[in-house]
Amino acid sequence: METVLGGCLPSAEIAPQRLHDAMRYAVLGGGKRVRPLLAFAAGEVAGADINRVQTVAASVELIHVYSLVHDDMPCMDDDKLRRGKPTCHVEYNEPTALLVGDSLQSLAFQLIAESGLADDPLVQLKMIKLLAMASGSRGMAGGQAFDLDSVGKMLTLSELEFMHIHKTGALIRAAVMLGANCGNGMDEAALEKIEHFAKCIGLAFQVVDDILDAESSTATLGKTAGKDAKQNKPTYVSLMGVEKARAFADELHRDAMASLNIFGDKAKRLRELGDFIVLRKF
Amino acid sequence: METVLGGCLPSAEIAPQRLHDAMRYAVLGGGKRVRPLLAFAAGEVAGADINRVQTVAASVELIHVYSLVHDDMPCMDDDKLRRGKPTCHVEYNEPTALLVGDSLQSLAFQLIAESGLADDPLVQLKMIKLLAMASGSRGMAGGQAFDLDSVGKMLTLSELEFMHIHKTGALIRAAVMLGANCGNGMDEAALEKIEHFAKCIGLAFQVVDDILDAESSTATLGKTAGKDAKQNKPTYVSLMGVEKARAFADELHRDAMASLNIFGDKAKRLRELGDFIVLRKF
Repeated sequence: METVLGGCLPSAEIAPQRLHDAMRYAVLGGGKRVRPLLAFAAGEVAGADINRVQTVAASVELIHVYSLVHDDMPCMDDDKLRRGKPTCHVEYNEPTALLVGDSLQSLAFQLIAESGLADDPLVQLKMIKLLAMASGSRGMAGGQAFDLDSVGKMLTLSELEFMHIHKTGALIRAAVMLGANCGNGMDEAALEKIEHFAKCIGLAFQVVDDILDAESSTATLGKTAGKDAKQNKPTYVSLMGVEKARAFADELHRDAMASLNIFGDKAKRLRELGDFIVLRKF
Repeated sequence: METVLGGCLPSAEIAPQRLHDAMRYAVLGGGKRVRPLLAFAAGEVAGADINRVQTVAASVELIHVYSLVHDDMPCMDDDKLRRGKPTCHVEYNEPTALLVGDSLQSLAFQLIAESGLADDPLVQLKMIKLLAMASGSRGMAGGQAFDLDSVGKMLTLSELEFMHIHKTGALIRAAVMLGANCGNGMDEAALEKIEHFAKCIGLAFQVVDDILDAESSTATLGKTAGKDAKQNKPTYVSLMGVEKARAFADELHRDAMASLNIFGDKAKRLRELGDFIVLRKF
């Protein structure tokens, strides 16, 4: 994935050099790459060509990184550390970070419009729409806006779930569905099953994030820990307590795994990723 | 165009309401709509279906507005007035403005991925790539980055041209080419002619912008006038003086018009727009 992303990003030798350098800084050399891994694993279930999958995987990761760069900016979370390095606006400056995020989003759509990602170009147009909807105001960015509006408020569990289904869940679901759509091996029923897996694991990802933020150290996470409580943000931990949040993550994990049964051995990697997402320590 | 844009944007009744309200505020009720008009006029030359053209026109305008919202933010131009109204971050707040820009970009790609914008879906994929490249680090956002780096510096004329070909020219060219690609009536030679028109008129647009910024009042422009000199930005006026800048705009105008000769009466509106861009007073 690192090699693919490095090849997709403009070289830092090309003008505007400083912007390209900052884009490479933000994207390369860090991150768990959970979304690309999910796309690869879903592509494997669908028997997809790996060259196709790596393009959609890169595309989803670029959207993810653009959102991190913008979220870290002073007017949002004002964070200094990301993936164990100074955040983009700290290493460069604010206007550059703004343009890095903007340019990474454009690049994501440029990549996924490369011809030949699906046998039927109409399927590919659907994939582009899927990524755009997952990224925009009714997906990731919308979840972020809901998050901003909820700081200092008491949310109900269902409001918190609405927020996370958008903020984190939408792009995780997109990663899985784009990987799956690179192949031809899936009928509607199979696509529904894999989508259910994606929804459960997307929410579990956030529940575990909340637990880790409350329990881990900054050194382990590679980003500032304890941020949620400090910012008085509603989380699964603040609403349910750590124990119940952990039980909820386990329940989502079981539900996710059950929906993979019909795929047998082909879903081996997807299961491993489901385990990783729930059991990870960072 | 106003109706089309209003229909493309999510209703302010839909969650997250505040974000959707801010997106509508930024996009609707103002602006010259030069890029949509260029797309419509180019579509007319190509004999394109108006329903197709209005979608690509909206898509280009959404990209343009997202760039205005982000450029006006405190970390960029820190502008308070746009299209005669308070800028988005003044009317709402900074994080909302950031997410408005991000969401408008996603929405632009969502729209242009709607099936049926070209007879051949492969042409449509090419159109999406064209818009993405025009928007990103080697197009509009790249021009913006070059602009940031050039504040307080002395640029050569060719550096200034490089900047504007990216910052303003890329999206104007995209508007024309996307409109033209909605039809089937153009061979390679015709597409080259219309592209030459777009390049000349895109640069003329910026030269005239520089002249207006130096000579007009804030009330006439609907945005802050005299900003370039105050920020010590290199412009065609600062490099050539007003008289030579005006002569250069006229030369680009003649060059643009000449490349439309082969289209006869079909290019009537495109000629009118070429005239408007060079002769406008706001």
